[in-house]
Amino acid sequence: MELWFTEKQTENFGITAKVSRTLHTERTPYQQIDVLETVEYGRMLVLDGMVMCTDRDEFIYHEMIAHVPLFTHPDPKQVLVIGGGDGGTIREVVKHPRVERAVLAEIDERVIAVSQEYFPALSQGFADPRVKIEVGDGIAHVKANKDTYDVILVDSTEPIGPAEGLFAREFYEGIYEALRPGGVFVAQTESPLFNAALISRIWRDIASIYPVTRLYLAPVPTYPTGMWSFTLGSKGPDPLQAEGEDETPIDTRYYTPEVHRASFALPRFVEELLAR
Amino acid sequence: MELWFTEKQTENFGITAKVSRTLHTERTPYQQIDVLETVEYGRMLVLDGMVMCTDRDEFIYHEMIAHVPLFTHPDPKQVLVIGGGDGGTIREVVKHPRVERAVLAEIDERVIAVSQEYFPALSQGFADPRVKIEVGDGIAHVKANKDTYDVILVDSTEPIGPAEGLFAREFYEGIYEALRPGGVFVAQTESPLFNAALISRIWRDIASIYPVTRLYLAPVPTYPTGMWSFTLGSKGPDPLQAEGEDETPIDTRYYTPEVHRASFALPRFVEELLAR
Amino acid sequence: MELWFTEKQTENFGITAKVSRTLHTERTPYQQIDVLETVEYGRMLVLDGMVMCTDRDEFIYHEMIAHVPLFTHPDPKQVLVIGGGDGGTIREVVKHPRVERAVLAEIDERVIAVSQEYFPALSQGFADPRVKIEVGDGIAHVKANKDTYDVILVDSTEPIGPAEGLFAREFYEGIYEALRPGGVFVAQTESPLFNAALISRIWRDIASIYPVTRLYLAPVPTYPTGMWSFTLGSKGPDPLQAEGEDETPIDTRYYTPEVHRASFALPRFVEELLAR
Amino acid sequence: MELWFTEKQTENFGITAKVSRTLHTERTPYQQIDVLETVEYGRMLVLDGMVMCTDRDEFIYHEMIAHVPLFTHPDPKQVLVIGGGDGGTIREVVKHPRVERAVLAEIDERVIAVSQEYFPALSQGFADPRVKIEVGDGIAHVKANKDTYDVILVDSTEPIGPAEGLFAREFYEGIYEALRPGGVFVAQTESPLFNAALISRIWRDIASIYPVTRLYLAPVPTYPTGMWSFTLGSKGPDPLQAEGEDETPIDTRYYTPEVHRASFALPRFVEELLAR
Repeated sequence: MELWFTEKQTENFGITAKVSRTLHTERTPYQQIDVLETVEYGRMLVLDGMVMCTDRDEFIYHEMIAHVPLFTHPDPKQVLVIGGGDGGTIREVVKHPRVERAVLAEIDERVIAVSQEYFPALSQGFADPRVKIEVGDGIAHVKANKDTYDVILVDSTEPIGPAEGLFAREFYEGIYEALRPGGVFVAQTESPLFNAALISRIWRDIASIYPVTRLYLAPVPTYPTGMWSFTLGSKGPDPLQAEGEDETPIDTRYYTPEVHRASFALPRFVEELLAR
Repeated sequence: MELWFTEKQTENFGITAKVSRTLHTERTPYQQIDVLETVEYGRMLVLDGMVMCTDRDEFIYHEMIAHVPLFTHPDPKQVLVIGGGDGGTIREVVKHPRVERAVLAEIDERVIAVSQEYFPALSQGFADPRVKIEVGDGIAHVKANKDTYDVILVDSTEPIGPAEGLFAREFYEGIYEALRPGGVFVAQTESPLFNAALISRIWRDIASIYPVTRLYLAPVPTYPTGMWSFTLGSKGPDPLQAEGEDETPIDTRYYTPEVHRASFALPRFVEELLAR
Repeated sequence: MELWFTEKQTENFGITAKVSRTLHTERTPYQQIDVLETVEYGRMLVLDGMVMCTDRDEFIYHEMIAHVPLFTHPDPKQVLVIGGGDGGTIREVVKHPRVERAVLAEIDERVIAVSQEYFPALSQGFADPRVKIEVGDGIAHVKANKDTYDVILVDSTEPIGPAEGLFAREFYEGIYEALRPGGVFVAQTESPLFNAALISRIWRDIASIYPVTRLYLAPVPTYPTGMWSFTLGSKGPDPLQAEGEDETPIDTRYYTPEVHRASFALPRFVEELLAR
Repeated sequence: MELWFTEKQTENFGITAKVSRTLHTERTPYQQIDVLETVEYGRMLVLDGMVMCTDRDEFIYHEMIAHVPLFTHPDPKQVLVIGGGDGGTIREVVKHPRVERAVLAEIDERVIAVSQEYFPALSQGFADPRVKIEVGDGIAHVKANKDTYDVILVDSTEPIGPAEGLFAREFYEGIYEALRPGGVFVAQTESPLFNAALISRIWRDIASIYPVTRLYLAPVPTYPTGMWSFTLGSKGPDPLQAEGEDETPIDTRYYTPEVHRASFALPRFVEELLAR
């Protein structure tokens, strides 16, 4: 049976995946949540029609948003993940033995519940005793917790809809306040090919607040263009000087210390984008 | 009007692009050639239903297949491109002032003609006086030209159809013979996510012939998974020791010396793939 | 979420329906059964990728395959439905008070079970005490029950796959034997626009066996071209002389006595098709 | 190459046709015009993304909009076609020897020009010396030509966009004025399955103006649901009493005198729709 899910990543381009079953569909106060069984990528979490993660390729995104900042910070004890209700990022965070507390601030508790039901491999990290789930507005959480975190990860959906405020300058300032001295934050910042203006603007915003600003890249096949950016702001440690994995190696499928360094080697057109 | 081109990159996954016009369609003795005007990626060259290149993202593939080996070899005078009838690879090759002769061995002369008509930015390199076009079988050309080339680039279509022989061990041996001492060759070798077994096999084949074997990666949004591999075999120079751009900088949009090095930092799952 | 079911009705044309949920999917020894919740047509029964019926438009097909022959025969006591496991045809048959026994010979019991679970409006007729379900081969049933039925309805799937034999001349001969004197049979016979050769062949076959042969048409939006044909063979009664509804009016949404007569008024190109 | 045109006939249902070439694309002051070469239906004229006609099935619509009223009127000398810039309706009109003048009032002259270039079989009627093309607003033409026509055919696009006014009560009143005594008009009035409310409203509007109002149906595979309605208003002649073809038979592929009569036999749900 020809049953296909299509995400129009732009008005004029998309990806399309054969679906064997719909597992869940739900409209929450924040968004539409769908879980699909796809033939090629396994289970797929879809929020407002956009692919958030799939069984097959989620490891790349989650490892890269988590391990790059966590290996950049020399002693990441207190970690905050904003968004990321599927749990994939928290799962990577708790692989770090130095982490003492990992808070997840997710606005939509249904994403968490759906992930726990349909994505055990993603949501397994929630079982770690160091994890604390806070259902609520990430922006408010940041404002209410000044000088608290060593690492903050902004694992948001696209900059339209419920996550719009997570791409604003004021939010990056709030994160600065919420970080302890030497703190590091990373936000997923879309594709340099499709979202050049956004990346350029975020870069300027973060660079005007943080002494160290870096952009790194990773391939995410089911995200638009498959070429994904993360922007990092740091109060001190520079990811380019990071040692990568310390004495305790982390079990990964994508991340390695070499990949850590290589991900900051930017294509010329991206360098030019940031120099605008 | 909703007119969409879809490439099923596998039986169960695809990309889909809105089309404003069909510019050309033709069945040659070797394959179906189509040229589409897409809204998102500009003109698109499609062979046997598969995207070969698009105006918007072709620079990544063509720069990476050409500049990595050309900056690895200290003095690339004689260069052979097998396949690559669109001209994008040759265009990058002739950016190197040390190149004295760049031969294109393309089996389907219609690809060349179609590119010259519809893709001036790709085919401009054909005008360079150092370029020599040989319409014919690349395998035969390699056999007939022993000890001739410094750099050989295998810019093939997928390993099904007319390009099948370009992925065979015997062909890599033929290339070894066609290379002069210190020669370097590179082949495009598909996606590590969708074509793991193929990459693993090619790696073993090349490693059994060439003293230096390396795999590097680049993102190509319109290719399957967007994560593309190139496998390099060398009679001497190691791309990891290459200086990258020498005194004469090359005009690029993706390649930089840092990107050159970074492209060899392999994700753990790719490392494991090659260690099988 | 853009989740669409597409039936390629031919290699080059199809219909596509937005799906909100997959309700059931199963591979039986005979075919693939899928039940989809579509936004436009409600629930949809899909066998081997082809739409069999939908909540919204099934009434047309089922009324026309049943009431035309049942109002043609003056006293239809014994009725056989071959195929039609969804129950829609039987539901119409048992609306006729003269019917004393309605046998359903369906080869795939899973179609019956799935319809009972997901299509109560279709399968309600199974509850009628006059209905007898025979799971098994319709062709064998016909052979084993000579001189038995007043009306036989061949409610088959397409002439490829499990239903192929239901379009063969031998089968129409077997039906002739199974009919009592004055008996009438009808088969669904696809679209005159897409299946001209098939219709022409069936017409000749039936006309060579039955003294009265007629073709009639009805629109079925979710079937190929939306213009559907039924071929009727009769041992005596002529549907053109039928009175249509007798004293006991039947509750219908499509069929009327006028529609009965009008459905035999054939477009010129269909007349020509039958005259070949 | 998988290149498909999809018309979403509603937000949740569509048809999809494989395209071999785009022949023409143009934005006029009134609409988007596209001409596609489809594999299944031949050339396809698409206005604002909606299929207007195709080589393969256009005969049904054009014969039925023209011959039913022209055989209803005993002496159709002066005929007006509003819309219908492709020429298919005019082609049928001029098959009637009694017609002395056939005026085409089409607002978009580009539709006429495009049809003349790409649809010779449709536009051939324009060459008839009795045809007069008036580029301009059909509503204004009707107002300016009182008591002029024997038959008026409203061959409009959908009731959204440029044709909206052609579905208004005032327009039907204007047509009444433009008709001579005994005059007959027909409008295409969409699908009873998808546009029940529209048909019901038009029926009441026309019935409140014309002494004779009739609705008839014809299958048009590439129109929504494939089941198409035409509403006829008459100052005198009743199509149910029409003789159909008179002494001079007309060359047709769909229309016959029997089909003429049968097309007025309405399914029960349509009867009920009109009785609301």
